[in-house]
Amino acid sequence: MTGNAHKAEEVASFFKGTADVTHISLDLPEYRSEDVGEIARGKAQYAYAQLTSPLIVDDTGFFIDALRGFPGPYAAYVLKSIGNTGILRLMEGRPDRGARFITAIAFADAGGVHVFKGTIEGQITTAPRGDGGFGYDPIFDTGGKTLAEIPLEEKSRISHRARALTAFHDWFITAYQPR
Amino acid sequence: MTGNAHKAEEVASFFKGTADVTHISLDLPEYRSEDVGEIARGKAQYAYAQLTSPLIVDDTGFFIDALRGFPGPYAAYVLKSIGNTGILRLMEGRPDRGARFITAIAFADAGGVHVFKGTIEGQITTAPRGDGGFGYDPIFDTGGKTLAEIPLEEKSRISHRARALTAFHDWFITAYQPR
Repeated sequence: MTGNAHKAEEVASFFKGTADVTHISLDLPEYRSEDVGEIARGKAQYAYAQLTSPLIVDDTGFFIDALRGFPGPYAAYVLKSIGNTGILRLMEGRPDRGARFITAIAFADAGGVHVFKGTIEGQITTAPRGDGGFGYDPIFDTGGKTLAEIPLEEKSRISHRARALTAFHDWFITAYQPR
Repeated sequence: MTGNAHKAEEVASFFKGTADVTHISLDLPEYRSEDVGEIARGKAQYAYAQLTSPLIVDDTGFFIDALRGFPGPYAAYVLKSIGNTGILRLMEGRPDRGARFITAIAFADAGGVHVFKGTIEGQITTAPRGDGGFGYDPIFDTGGKTLAEIPLEEKSRISHRARALTAFHDWFITAYQPR
């Protein structure tokens, strides 16, 4: 279950024929952490204590090397406040442009919590490029194109979210033991 | 009780002769909110559920008008990652320099949670000034001096924390009914 209907559809399509996935909205407190894996784990524990049925939660961060990981787990808030303009300003004149998106998916059931991560590596551009995508996509170059220049279908295949979901799915169909 | 021994001393000195204050460290999950009052309220509820004894928790944010409130409740993380250098860079050429610190203190007992806030208004400087203080103090001008230029004793009297604590103290000695 995820806090977003679109995400739930994505997960459901991943698990078609394997497991039924439904979507539940739940207000979750979060341990503040710079590790999205720990954030997802904390939320999954809390959600499982309330729902006592197997579930997943996810958390995504955006980490820029030259800014000591900023905006990290606060990517959504930073986008809304200072935005891509702010990020580009903070990055002016910096030679190290390395950055990454990380999504963590935490699966909880009676056996405990398992965390799966997916990462996409890239570079911060010097100016926004591309009309697609959302959020940081126009300033995040991966393999010569920004995520806003990559068609949605391809982006959905290579994204941090897809990678985390694949890792979870692989584990789920090969190693998962229901309890 | 607070998560920091120094803060606990400050609180204890405020309540000398009125109430005994001790300090307990507790790992608290937090609702992500841009309102430090709501963050403190959530933490106080959680802490009270665990400790079932009257307690206070606090939360502080730093809000810059021209940056849509950034860094807000994430002041500590932003200081550690992009720091005052990053803030000054984001503020370059911006005429609106208004900013404020807000501390919220949440008191919880069997009767529920009460939240008290203290604010200090100021302006973001164009360069750091002063050797005292910590954090954002050198770039926060209030009444012509930065908090890093104001002697500690005076700062302790006019600070957002002191104001929140005073509001709580006034309520506690005049209106509080133990349950």
